[in-house]
Order: sequence, then C-alpha cells, then structure tokens
Amino acid sequence: MSSGEEVKIGMLGMGTVGGGVARLLERNGELLAGRTGIKLTLQRVLVRDLSRRRAVDLPPQTYTTSPDAVIRDPAISVVVELMGGIEPARTLISEALKEKKDVVTANKDLMAQHGRELLDLARRCGRNIYFEASAGGGIPLIRPLKHCLVANRIRCIIGIINGTTNYILTRMSFDDMDFQEALARAQELGFAEADPSSDIEGRDAAYKLAILAGIAFNCQVDPGELYIEGIKNVTRADIHYARELGYTIKLLAIGEEKPGGLLLRVHPALVPLAHPLASVHDEFNALFIEGDLIGEAMFYGRGAGALPTASAVVADIIDAVRSRGRGEGSPHPGKPEQKKLLPLSVLDSRFYVRFLAQDLPGVFGALATAFGDEGVSLDMIIQKRKKNGVAEIVLVTHTVSEERFQRAMEKALRLPTIRPEAAVFRVLE
Amino acid sequence: MSSGEEVKIGMLGMGTVGGGVARLLERNGELLAGRTGIKLTLQRVLVRDLSRRRAVDLPPQTYTTSPDAVIRDPAISVVVELMGGIEPARTLISEALKEKKDVVTANKDLMAQHGRELLDLARRCGRNIYFEASAGGGIPLIRPLKHCLVANRIRCIIGIINGTTNYILTRMSFDDMDFQEALARAQELGFAEADPSSDIEGRDAAYKLAILAGIAFNCQVDPGELYIEGIKNVTRADIHYARELGYTIKLLAIGEEKPGGLLLRVHPALVPLAHPLASVHDEFNALFIEGDLIGEAMFYGRGAGALPTASAVVADIIDAVRSRGRGEGSPHPGKPEQKKLLPLSVLDSRFYVRFLAQDLPGVFGALATAFGDEGVSLDMIIQKRKKNGVAEIVLVTHTVSEERFQRAMEKALRLPTIRPEAAVFRVLE
Repeated sequence: MSSGEEVKIGMLGMGTVGGGVARLLERNGELLAGRTGIKLTLQRVLVRDLSRRRAVDLPPQTYTTSPDAVIRDPAISVVVELMGGIEPARTLISEALKEKKDVVTANKDLMAQHGRELLDLARRCGRNIYFEASAGGGIPLIRPLKHCLVANRIRCIIGIINGTTNYILTRMSFDDMDFQEALARAQELGFAEADPSSDIEGRDAAYKLAILAGIAFNCQVDPGELYIEGIKNVTRADIHYARELGYTIKLLAIGEEKPGGLLLRVHPALVPLAHPLASVHDEFNALFIEGDLIGEAMFYGRGAGALPTASAVVADIIDAVRSRGRGEGSPHPGKPEQKKLLPLSVLDSRFYVRFLAQDLPGVFGALATAFGDEGVSLDMIIQKRKKNGVAEIVLVTHTVSEERFQRAMEKALRLPTIRPEAAVFRVLE
Repeated sequence: MSSGEEVKIGMLGMGTVGGGVARLLERNGELLAGRTGIKLTLQRVLVRDLSRRRAVDLPPQTYTTSPDAVIRDPAISVVVELMGGIEPARTLISEALKEKKDVVTANKDLMAQHGRELLDLARRCGRNIYFEASAGGGIPLIRPLKHCLVANRIRCIIGIINGTTNYILTRMSFDDMDFQEALARAQELGFAEADPSSDIEGRDAAYKLAILAGIAFNCQVDPGELYIEGIKNVTRADIHYARELGYTIKLLAIGEEKPGGLLLRVHPALVPLAHPLASVHDEFNALFIEGDLIGEAMFYGRGAGALPTASAVVADIIDAVRSRGRGEGSPHPGKPEQKKLLPLSVLDSRFYVRFLAQDLPGVFGALATAFGDEGVSLDMIIQKRKKNGVAEIVLVTHTVSEERFQRAMEKALRLPTIRPEAAVFRVLE
C-alpha cells in the first residue's frame, strides 16, 4: 500500500445505502485518505434510471445503466454491490470476482443463501468478498468475530438483530401500545416497511443469524432450516407479566454449539432485566457472544440506516484495498466444517406460559399436576382474576427439555378448565 | 502468508496474562492454526525465576532469565511484552523493534505514557506495535475503532473501563453495601488489588482513556493532564437518591472532541437507567462511542482476566503475522494531529448536588435563590428530613457551564443554613 493511493470503486445500485456511501465519501473522504493513505473515488455507478436526481452530485458520466461498464472497467479494483435481492446481484458479483475485482456487499439475502458459494468462487479467483454490512448494518460484528475473537471457541451468539421488531417490542413495553399500534408507529418513522412480514415473522433475523453463525461456528448454514417464530403472538399482557417477573420480551436470534451440532433458532424470549440484551431498546441491535476465552461480550449499535451501513461498507472497502496489497486469498482461510443442525426438540430451556382458565376451585392444582406428572417443575407462578369468571395463570418453569415441556403442555391443554389459547415463550437463562 | 506457517513467539514475562497466553496456545492452538493457517509456538519466555513451577508445561529450555535470549533470537518474529510497568519494558520493546521484531503488548502504563514514542520508533524500524489488550483487556476496542469505524469522525467516547470500581459501585448499588464493604468484597474476589488506589482514584481509567482517546481522536494524550476524580466520595445515600431520580452512578472516562480541542475526564457520574452504560454491571467494562456515521455504538465485555486478555494478545499476534506478510509499516498511518486539551471549565453539564441543611423554614428558598441568581436552573428536587433537625436536599440542575455551576455552589455553601459537606456529581445526558 503506497501512501496517497487512489482507488477506483464501482458501485452497483444507488438506493439508500448507495446514497449513504456517496455522501460519506463526499463528507469524510479526505479524513479517510488522511487516516489510511487511500483515496476512494466512485468511478462508475450502476443505476436503473439515468434521469433521476440524486442527493449527491457525482459527475454525470459516473452513472451507467450497463453492469458491464462497472464490473469490466479495468480501472476499478473494488466492486460494491448494494442492489439487494438474489438476482442479478449474484451473477454480477460472480462476474466481478472473475474479472479479479474484490467485492464488498451489504446483501443479506444473498450472503445468507449463497454466501458459501460466493466465498468459494472468490477463493478460486484469488479475490475476497466482504460483507460486514449484511448482518449488522453499521455494527462491527463480522470483523470482531473473525479477527478479534479469532482464538476463541464461540459457545453461543445471541442477537437482537432486527430493528423493526425491537422497535415494536420496545414501544409495546414502554408506551403500553399493542402490536398493531406499535407497528403503525414503526411504519410512520420508517423503521418498518409497508410489507413488514419478513421482519415480523423473523425471516430477516434468521438470514442474519445464518450469516453470523456461519462466521462464529465456521460452517455453512441454510437459513431455510432454522426454527423461526415471529413476534405476532406477543401481547401487552405478556409484556406486563414478564416485567412483573423481572423480564423483558425480545426477539432473539440464537446460535449455540452443542456436542452433536448446532442449535439455531429465532423466537421471542423473556430476557432477564439485568442481562445486557435487556437494555437494547428501540431500533438498536446487539450481538451477545460467549467465547471460551473472552467469556461474555456484546456489540451494540444501529443495525440499519444509510450512514451506519455506509460506515461498514467503507471499512470493508479499505480492508479490501489493504488485503489486495498483501496478496492474501480469502479472508476466510479456515475450511468450513460440516456441522449438523440439531432439531429444536433437543433444547433445554425455561418456559413462560400464560393460561386462561375457568376461575374455579382446583383449577390451578390440576394444572400444576399436569406439569408435575411430566417432571416439569415450576419456578414462578402468578394467578390473577379477570372478568367473567376467567382466571389468568402465568407460570415460569425451571429448565426442562423442549420435548418434555411440550408433552406437559398437551396434557394441560386437555384439561376441561383450561382454554386452548395459551401463550408460550422461551426464557433466556 | 503461506498456509500452515509456523511462527515463533518470544514472550517477556510469565505472570497472569503470560500464563493465559500459554494456556490459550495449549488449549486452542490447533483451532487457531486451522482457522488462520498460522501455528504459534512459544520459543523463548523471559522469567525472573527459572525454578518456579508453572501452570503450563513448556519445554524447560523455553525459559530464560536473559532478555537478549528473547529479543535477539533470529527465529523469533513477534515479541510479546507482558511484564507491565515502564522499565525495563520500554527499553526491551525498543530493542525488539530495532531487531525487526513486531511487538504485542498489554502494558497500559507504558502505552499511555510512551505510546507515541514507541509507535514512532516502530514506524522508523518498519515494524508494528499492537496493544489491544492494554486498554480494554479482552474487549475488542482498538481494532474496531481503527478499522471498523475508520470512516467515522468520532464525537465522543464514554467508557466504563475500570472493573474494580465498577464492581464496587455495582455492589453498593445492588447489595446496599457501603464503599469499604464493597471494596473488601472486591479484594476477596480478586477484583481489587491489596493497594487499590490506582483503581479507586481513577488513574487506571485515565491511562486507558489516554490510550483510547489517542486512537479515537488521532492524537497524543498525556494522561497526566486529564481531569481525574475517583469514587471515594460516592456514598450509599447518593446511589439511593440517584436511583430515585432514574439514574445509576458509574465511574466514567469521557473523551469529547469540541471545537477548540479535546475535553478528557474521569469522574463518577449519574447515568440514566435507560442508557446502555447503565447496564454494565460488576467487573464488566464497556466503551460507548458516538461517530458521525455510525451514531451510537457500544462494545462490552471483560476488561481484565488472564484468558480474556490473552484472547486479545493472541488476536494481535495473528494481526502482526498477517501484516508482516503485507509489508505494511505501522498500522497507524495517519500522522497524529496536535490537539489542545481543554480545561474542565469549558464543560457544559447537568449536576447532581446533595446538601445537608438545617431543617428550618426558608432554607430551600435561599438555596434555590443562590442557584437562580447565577442563572443555574433546577430540573429535579428532593428534600427529606433526617434526624436531629438536619434536612437533606438533593438537586439536579439543567445543563449549565461548569464555571457558572461552581460559582453557584460557592454562593450556596456560604449560606449559614447549609453545611459545607455537599456531594456533587456530574450527570450524563
């Protein structure tokens, strides 16, 4: 790396994050050059519509509607893919690697579903692909996991990695909103999309978990195989009871290495109020990590947004330029290991259950017996009378296997005094 | 970097952290080699006493009492300094750099006081010096600040970077202990040293702040010039009042870039309970960062301990080996800027004050007038009767300049009804 080197960047896509990268280079480009000795220039930018006005003034000849003009420009050494979606991003990245460009991408869907294939291709091409922004937006996650914790055996990662659902749950918790109100508020503020289903149903978090688990546990993870449960069933009542018991409810993405393989899951969970993840509010994200050396660590910040994401993209570009100088192959030299994904039934967990029951003598006894008979012991109990002769019974179990718990639940729900609409959430230890 | 490269390490010192590095390599050395292609071997280790038994079995000829046997061994490419203190560490590191070794150190005192000199020497020698473990123990702080946030202008860093004081304040807060009890407990558990003054008085945190501010603001900071206030004056009463007002008390190390220069300070402060730093309990550390792109971010983990610190040391070694391959000079290519350290008098802050007053009519009015006359307006007030005709009055001001606040305090303390022993703490916004 020579001092004051100019590096020409090709960018595919000029949406929110692309605009963020352009603004960043305009605003902090000189600072960056002073710090790194690398001056980044946006040489060509692929757009759909040449006539559209942009927030940042680039020379008009920068824009092109031809992908080849970007990925085959010999002056360009790093291609930044910010189009999103699988195609044509996948094909264009592959072509760029074959053209001996390094690639930086913020594409979560692509890296979750085709990450390993692209990493392999990059290795074969002697180039690198960087994707820090794909999983954590602006928060440094992949680089710390890969570099700073390189000597650690990661035992588990627990993430709040979807800003939309965290914003919704925070508003439900602090402003006593119900789910629909909080969702509407998130949409107003731009924290939720018009179609929020990928966020709400946990798929977005599952994709990010697949990427992060791939790094943490050095393996390939198919996001389609994860257990996924969204936040639609979280009610204000559950949030209130959780708080009474010393917990808050968060959508967690959890990856654990167990003796037989990996257990990966996305679901809402009760988080103890003293746990660092309990203080991750609003649209913020965080990844909590347990390593055999470092113990517990957490990285916290903004998981989305134009400038935070651009911050991660540009850090990746700088890394790409520096690694190019050192002639390294892939930054992922460890061969991925084959690891089995374990079914949820092997999970040991505590459980929170809220039952609706007839307010009659003996109801609680019957319920407790149903649990006791299956060997599920109870840690905390709240029973409150609602109107119309209905009682609400909230239980938190001690640690028990998922299988055993589900058997107890079946038995409980067969009791004539217990209504079928019970709410069940797992509890983080 | 070739695959499966063996790299020979020389280590100066075999105390807690040195033992941690040896255990790490024994336990996770193969894992590390699989991930990085780099096999680390402890070639020579400088110790004071050859006859002492060690927790890890290294070949007896590894140990030496001669520094030269380590730093002049041509087979050794990276020297790890874990002796602590200024001398002989400073001289040995300088010699090692001149011998064209890269250096990794966890030496806080040395990097805080002579960091720039050693970085300059490293640059002149064409070598690098790495010091991740010197400021954050096991928590990745320096690498994320330098690499992941490279495009950001850092506005401020706020750290809980002393585990001893954080443990003491946590116990005072949660277990209602007074300072002496909590300190004794910390000493029992090994979280505080027999002579805890450097921790308690804030000097340890100031050294770490000097290192981190040097990185965040790209300048040289003399730790002797920082404003430092320890935790000895924090009482149970203040912790209770703080909680009543929605705060917890933490020892903070704060660095801010302001128009005229840097404002750096270590002092206890009231932290709003919803702030991410409020949930950093026990011996844990965290660094909260505000960057112009990333917004707010936080890194959390263990700031001390043999294995967490060894984890950071070994990550640095790997980085040193990789950078060696790429023929890079110092990892700190940006020339340090000259930045003025601003005096505390330019600070704008909110303040918490607890007065003891005679429980007479008009006392509070006189106090409020003393503040009002100086233009200090009050945000929160608690007045409680104590025994023997003494009232306790707690105020939290709106934001005001340090200077103006100090004038108001002088005036208040001159009131005949107010006792001189007031407690004053700054409040984090």
